[in-house]
Amino acid sequence: MTKDKHRQQFPALANKAYFNCGGQGPLPESALEAIYEAYKRVQLGGPFSGEVGAWVVQEAMLTRRAIANELAVPPETIALTEDVTVGCNIALWGIDWRSGDHLLLSDCEHPGIVASVNELQRRFNLEVSVCPLAATLNGGDAVAVITDYLQPNTRLLVISHILWNTGQVLPLAEIVQVCHESYKPPIQEDLSLIQSRGETDINPSLTQEDFFRIQSGVQESFSDRKYQVRVLVDAAQSVGVLPLNLIESGVDFYAFTGHKWWCGPEGLGGLYVSAEALADLHPVFIGWRGIVTDSSAKVMGWKPGSKRYEIATSAYPLYAGLRSAIALQHEWGTVEERYAEICRLSKYLWESLSEISHVKCLRTSAPEAGLVSFQLTNGMPHKQLVDLLEKQGIMVRTILNPDCVRACVHYFTTEAEIDRLVGAIGIM
Amino acid sequence: MTKDKHRQQFPALANKAYFNCGGQGPLPESALEAIYEAYKRVQLGGPFSGEVGAWVVQEAMLTRRAIANELAVPPETIALTEDVTVGCNIALWGIDWRSGDHLLLSDCEHPGIVASVNELQRRFNLEVSVCPLAATLNGGDAVAVITDYLQPNTRLLVISHILWNTGQVLPLAEIVQVCHESYKPPIQEDLSLIQSRGETDINPSLTQEDFFRIQSGVQESFSDRKYQVRVLVDAAQSVGVLPLNLIESGVDFYAFTGHKWWCGPEGLGGLYVSAEALADLHPVFIGWRGIVTDSSAKVMGWKPGSKRYEIATSAYPLYAGLRSAIALQHEWGTVEERYAEICRLSKYLWESLSEISHVKCLRTSAPEAGLVSFQLTNGMPHKQLVDLLEKQGIMVRTILNPDCVRACVHYFTTEAEIDRLVGAIGIM
Repeated sequence: MTKDKHRQQFPALANKAYFNCGGQGPLPESALEAIYEAYKRVQLGGPFSGEVGAWVVQEAMLTRRAIANELAVPPETIALTEDVTVGCNIALWGIDWRSGDHLLLSDCEHPGIVASVNELQRRFNLEVSVCPLAATLNGGDAVAVITDYLQPNTRLLVISHILWNTGQVLPLAEIVQVCHESYKPPIQEDLSLIQSRGETDINPSLTQEDFFRIQSGVQESFSDRKYQVRVLVDAAQSVGVLPLNLIESGVDFYAFTGHKWWCGPEGLGGLYVSAEALADLHPVFIGWRGIVTDSSAKVMGWKPGSKRYEIATSAYPLYAGLRSAIALQHEWGTVEERYAEICRLSKYLWESLSEISHVKCLRTSAPEAGLVSFQLTNGMPHKQLVDLLEKQGIMVRTILNPDCVRACVHYFTTEAEIDRLVGAIGIM
Repeated sequence: MTKDKHRQQFPALANKAYFNCGGQGPLPESALEAIYEAYKRVQLGGPFSGEVGAWVVQEAMLTRRAIANELAVPPETIALTEDVTVGCNIALWGIDWRSGDHLLLSDCEHPGIVASVNELQRRFNLEVSVCPLAATLNGGDAVAVITDYLQPNTRLLVISHILWNTGQVLPLAEIVQVCHESYKPPIQEDLSLIQSRGETDINPSLTQEDFFRIQSGVQESFSDRKYQVRVLVDAAQSVGVLPLNLIESGVDFYAFTGHKWWCGPEGLGGLYVSAEALADLHPVFIGWRGIVTDSSAKVMGWKPGSKRYEIATSAYPLYAGLRSAIALQHEWGTVEERYAEICRLSKYLWESLSEISHVKCLRTSAPEAGLVSFQLTNGMPHKQLVDLLEKQGIMVRTILNPDCVRACVHYFTTEAEIDRLVGAIGIM
């Protein structure tokens, strides 16, 4: 199928040049029709009946399976959520935090996630650090930066797979590896100092607080090892873009949404929880969907797998819409083919923008995915540029930190669209 | 408009006798069309653009306003949520729980809420009690039972306005009143004992534990008074049924859904938080919708009012569907007229069922709302009855505790439907 013909299945693409898939992807007509038909189907058989109840269970199962297939994980590791942020919150709040635990966050996380971490810090008296990944966009080693910021009391690292502001792709498997292996060496080193005399004054640079921190770390490390660093990934910008194998990556928590690069309906996302991480991640917002009850409705425990994190009634008709959207992308090509096309087009956009004298791309080399962030150097406020472009039917968005404009290309973007965007920016 | 004509606007009512509005109400055709049009509108203008972003803000505002109008509260007290359970969880987890705090729950709460309370108990080392309201269905005083179970360390009462299993309507304003006034007297009484000697042994019946509990209670009562008992209401069965004035009731938290008695789409509900309760209810699951950021995306604080409890991307097109559904109910009659019709019909159903020799209604007098729960006395399992009725196109549901069948009538239910249900049960 030609790209032009493929694009005709997305009504949103008909009347504009669209570069905001990182905000929301265009919904295919077939996905909307699937949603509409699902609503009618629920009304025909119920809406509340044994028959519709069974259909809802089946729909959820098919949707977890379709998602799991994209992430190369078993379906039982997937919880369906309202959006990526809910998925992140399930992981953030589900850890049995203890006062003084350390949470490490990158400096490129979405403000909503930062706010949730701030509240966790207040509520559980956590230590929170921010590691500088933004500065590694054009050099430097993100893995080394993260490793430097790990502490004996670190319990969770929060990063994005693709940074939403700069478009940088982080090396997920390597990061997970250092996190899962990180908790012993720094403690061992300090331990020898303490054990040799059993006093803090062996090392004059050790404060009383450090001493207790290290002692506590020692206990953790050699008794229950609860301080293996878990990794939570905000995958808002990576799912539907990168070929993924989450089992191989070793990641603990991977939160995503269907409505960006998968082009599904808004209001449906999910959370992957690894089999190992599931064992000690407690459900927080809890409802009938996550629990098992006995014949007299007494609460007996959690549903098996990640279903335990699902809460209650959702907009079930959206499930068919997301599956339909994912299936349509497969009609165009494999995820590897689509990712290659995304990179080819983002390189073209990046090169074209780089030729404009009053534009500075954040990256000094071609992007690794579909996000292309740039700044105007002629003094025009970025908000003004975005508003002017929208009036011409060209959709991009501002990012506030770093202050820039973000244009996203998907596999269905055309060179003609890119030329239109670049042309419009060139004469601003 | 005649009822028959009004009913034609609900496709689900065309092919069955429907008694499951307590599970999910039938979606009006106009509501589905409003949802469908909203999806198309989002695609035409975006889906992600300045123009659609402003539309989403407007849609949310109009929806909070429509809901607030039904509850007789200011729109800024309403948070939009995915469902009633999320609303309950926002209140349950948002309290700054301290070890030893007491949470009081009725014995008629939904298992999903019970499970969330169980987890809160584990996580924060709470004391949880269950007060027996089921036994007050045909006599007894629910307010007195609750009052008996309040303790100096009680911080939250969790009840439903209409009990989902038995259909009992609780006297909300009176219950709130005893909760908001309850925290002083029991402490004062014990205080005089302690203050007179400063020793626990003044009263031989006081254990060491009681002494510390009372002492702690005294401090609270005379310093920051944080132990005023807040009241969380699961309003799944009352919103869309009872004429409401939440301000007058004094209730702190009132969680509801649009997809039951309001007949809106599944996946959209809300939470009312009183202006007073808002001051110390912390957001838990947090996202971009609830926060305020500065010009460089730094997190500055919460949105004003209950918006702070909204998380992130939702199925916004549902908003138009719920407003449309609510508006349609107003076309038929005022909430007082609809409630009167519900009571007239549930009385008719209750009387008709009571005449069947092998049926025992749970209530010994006519229902106070639309839920009619009954048991078979001929030994047929209730699940079997429900399945047999569904095969005939008659939708009711089982309840497991107490073991019964629940049939709901709404204002649009007809006597002919009720006769059909009763006739079918009569020959079982």
